Amino acid sequence: MSTPRTILLTGFQPFGGERENPSWQAVRALHGARIGGHRVVARELPVVFGDALKALRAALRETRPALAICVGQAGGRAQISLERVAINVDDARIPDNAGRQPVDVPVVAGGPAAYFATLPIKAMRQALCEAGFPAEVSQTAGTFVCNHVFYGLMHALRAQRHARAGFVHIPYSPAQAAAHPGAPSLPVETVTAALRLALRVALRTPTDMRAAAGAEH
Amino acid sequence: MSTPRTILLTGFQPFGGERENPSWQAVRALHGARIGGHRVVARELPVVFGDALKALRAALRETRPALAICVGQAGGRAQISLERVAINVDDARIPDNAGRQPVDVPVVAGGPAAYFATLPIKAMRQALCEAGFPAEVSQTAGTFVCNHVFYGLMHALRAQRHARAGFVHIPYSPAQAAAHPGAPSLPVETVTAALRLALRVALRTPTDMRAAAGAEH
Amino acid sequence: MSTPRTILLTGFQPFGGERENPSWQAVRALHGARIGGHRVVARELPVVFGDALKALRAALRETRPALAICVGQAGGRAQISLERVAINVDDARIPDNAGRQPVDVPVVAGGPAAYFATLPIKAMRQALCEAGFPAEVSQTAGTFVCNHVFYGLMHALRAQRHARAGFVHIPYSPAQAAAHPGAPSLPVETVTAALRLALRVALRTPTDMRAAAGAEH
Amino acid sequence: MSTPRTILLTGFQPFGGERENPSWQAVRALHGARIGGHRVVARELPVVFGDALKALRAALRETRPALAICVGQAGGRAQISLERVAINVDDARIPDNAGRQPVDVPVVAGGPAAYFATLPIKAMRQALCEAGFPAEVSQTAGTFVCNHVFYGLMHALRAQRHARAGFVHIPYSPAQAAAHPGAPSLPVETVTAALRLALRVALRTPTDMRAAAGAEH
Repeated sequence: MSTPRTILLTGFQPFGGERENPSWQAVRALHGARIGGHRVVARELPVVFGDALKALRAALRETRPALAICVGQAGGRAQISLERVAINVDDARIPDNAGRQPVDVPVVAGGPAAYFATLPIKAMRQALCEAGFPAEVSQTAGTFVCNHVFYGLMHALRAQRHARAGFVHIPYSPAQAAAHPGAPSLPVETVTAALRLALRVALRTPTDMRAAAGAEH
Repeated sequence: MSTPRTILLTGFQPFGGERENPSWQAVRALHGARIGGHRVVARELPVVFGDALKALRAALRETRPALAICVGQAGGRAQISLERVAINVDDARIPDNAGRQPVDVPVVAGGPAAYFATLPIKAMRQALCEAGFPAEVSQTAGTFVCNHVFYGLMHALRAQRHARAGFVHIPYSPAQAAAHPGAPSLPVETVTAALRLALRVALRTPTDMRAAAGAEH
Repeated sequence: MSTPRTILLTGFQPFGGERENPSWQAVRALHGARIGGHRVVARELPVVFGDALKALRAALRETRPALAICVGQAGGRAQISLERVAINVDDARIPDNAGRQPVDVPVVAGGPAAYFATLPIKAMRQALCEAGFPAEVSQTAGTFVCNHVFYGLMHALRAQRHARAGFVHIPYSPAQAAAHPGAPSLPVETVTAALRLALRVALRTPTDMRAAAGAEH
Repeated sequence: MSTPRTILLTGFQPFGGERENPSWQAVRALHGARIGGHRVVARELPVVFGDALKALRAALRETRPALAICVGQAGGRAQISLERVAINVDDARIPDNAGRQPVDVPVVAGGPAAYFATLPIKAMRQALCEAGFPAEVSQTAGTFVCNHVFYGLMHALRAQRHARAGFVHIPYSPAQAAAHPGAPSLPVETVTAALRLALRVALRTPTDMRAAAGAEH
C-alpha cells in the first residue's frame, strides 16, 4: 500500500493592518483533506521577504509535493486570480511584517527574469467559471511578498519536472471589505470550495487547454 | 392574540441577458420568516416599467406592511448598497423585459422630484459592517426599473407615516460574475443573511443615527 | 443698443489637501468671454457649507444671469459629468475648508427633496462627445459642497423660468493626478474648451433632445 | 562633426475598432526632433503578431538607436505607464489586425521567460510626476501585440549593452474616450510633451534611482 502523494497549499499571515488573511483561512480548511487521491498539507507563511521563502522551502523539503499552490490576498481584486507569471524582482510599496521594504532587488540573484506557473491555469479557470466561481487569469502577481514567494516556489522546483506549482490570488473576505468602502470580496468558504475544485482540475489535467485569457495591456 | 405585522420584501426577475436575479433569490429565502416579531412576505417583480409598479402596489395593498424594502441587482457594484434617494425620472439605457425604453419620462407625472428612503440607512450600514457584511450608502439608484420601483414605493407610501420603506442594491452572484470578467460578487446566502440583519436593525431603530456616509461627488 | 445678457460660471477654491482646483482654473479662463451673444462672468466659491451659497446668491443678484453653471472638481471621475439632479441633503465625509462637517442636514430646510438641472444635458453631452470631449450624464452630484451649491443654485432660481442652470463635475488636472496613483485626469485647457462648447449648446437648445443616458443602478 | 545618435520611437496603427491610435499620433509629433543631442526617428507598427516585430527589427537595423521606446495604447488606463517587464507569451483575447489570435505561444521560441526594460523607469516616473504628468510604473504590458513588440524589442537588443529600451503605455485620447463611457483619457499633446521629457530623463540617467513603485498584487 503506497502513501498518498502530497498537495502543498500555503496561505499568509495578516499584513498591511489587517487582522485576518483570508488566504490562510481558506487554505487551512483544506488541511488533511483527500483530493484526487492526494493528501493536502496546509502551511501559513509569514509576510516577510526572505523568511517567507525559508518557510516555504522547508515545507517543500518536508512534504515533497506533487502539486504546490501558494495563495495570497489581493485586496481590491474581485475574482479568484490564477497567476501566470512570477518575476525576479522585489519592489515593496509598503513595509513587510518585519519592516523590510526592498526596492528593485532580485528575489534570486542571478535567477532568470521570470518563471511561468506550471499549472493548467486555463483549464482551472474554465472549470471554476463553469461551476459558478468567478475566476480569471492574471498577468501579474505584483512585486511584494506574494510574487516573491511565487518566484521562489518556481525556482525551488525548477529541476523537478514532476512537481507542478503556481500561485492564486483571492479577494478580501466580506469582513475585510466592510472596512474598505467599495472593495469587492468573497467569503472564505466560497474560496475554499473554489480551491478544492481547482486542485482537482490541476491533478487531472496533464496538458493545459488552449483558451484565450490574455489582456491587451 | 394579534396578527403579526408584515415586512414586504421584493426582488426582481432576471434581465439584461442574465438567467438569474440574485435579488429574488436572496429575498425568496426569507419568505415566511419571522423577524423582530414581523412576518416576511417576499414577492418577485417583473423588470418592466409600469408593470413592476402595478405588482408592487398590489402587494402593498394586500400586505399593508410596516416595513417594505425592494431589492435589486446592481451588476458591477461590490457592496450591499443602501439607497438614499429615488428620483422622478425613467431613463433606460437598455430596454426592459417588455422592450420598453422610456427616456426622460417622470415615474409619476406631477410627483415631487425625489423621495428619500425612510429607513435608518446609517444604522443599517453600521450594523452590517460591524457584522462583517460589506455595505455602503449609495446616493443614486440609477434611472432604470430599480429607481422606478423605489420612487413608486415611496410615492405609494407617502401618506403612511407608520410605514417605512427603501431600496437595497446587491452585487452579482458569483455565478453571474463568472461570466463577467473582473466583476465583483457576493453569494446569495451572504446577501440573505445581511438582509435579515438589516431588517432587524430597521425595525429596532426608530430614528437614524448621525454618521457620515456621503460622497464628495 | 442693449447690454448683452450674462452667463455666470463658478468654480471652487482648492480643498481636501489639494493646492489647486481645476474647476476655478477652467472657469476663470472664460471670464469676460463672449459666447452666443452673452458675456461670461466667472466667480470663485469657497468650499464651505453655507458660505459657498452666500457667495453664489450674491453673484446671482449681481449678474442676473440667463444661464448659470457651477463647476466642481470630481477627483476620481474620468469624464466631464453633466449633473442631472441636486438633492436636499448635506452629508460630509470630510470637513469643508472651515472645518464644518454637516451630516444629514437639509441644504434648505423645508425645500423639496431634489431639483433637476434645467440645462439640456443630453444635447450638451452629445455635442461634447461628437467634438471629441469625453462627457457623460451623472445621476448624482454627491452630498458635499458641490451638491450643496447645485441645490442652492436651483432653489435660488426656482421662480425664474427664463434662467437655466446646472452643475458640471470635472476630473482632476494631470498635475493633481500625478499625486494620485491611477487617477484619471484632463488638462484644464481641454475642460475650458469643453465648457465653451457646452455653453454654446445650452444657449441654442431651448428644449433638450431625447437620448438615453441613464444608468441601471 | 559626428552624426547625432538616434532615438527610435514607435507607435501603432489603430486596432480593436478604433479609428485612431494615440500612440502613433503622440510619437509622430516627435519625428525629427532633437532631444538631448539625439535625433528622433518615429515609426508606425502594424498591430499584427509577427509583422509588427519584423517592422521593428528593420527599424532597429536601419537606425541603430541609442534609445528605443515603443509606445502603445492602453484603453482604460488613466496614466502614462512605464512598463517594467515583457513576458514570452502571446495570448490574444481579440484578433489582431490580420485576424490572427495566438494563444499561449511564445514570442520567441526558446527565449527567456521575460526581459526587464533597461530604461530608468523610476527616474522617468518621478520626473514626469514632478512636471505634472500623471505617470506610473506598470508590472504588466499584457499579452497582446504590445507585449509581443516589447519582448521582441528587448530580445533584439539583448546583446547590445549600450542600447537602452522599453515600452510605454498611454491612455485613450479624449476623442476615443468620448465613445467609451467612463473611460479615462489624455490629449495627444499632453502625451507628446510627457514623452519628450521622459526621453530626456532616460538619456541623462545612466543608473536608475531607488524608489518604490511596486504593487502588492
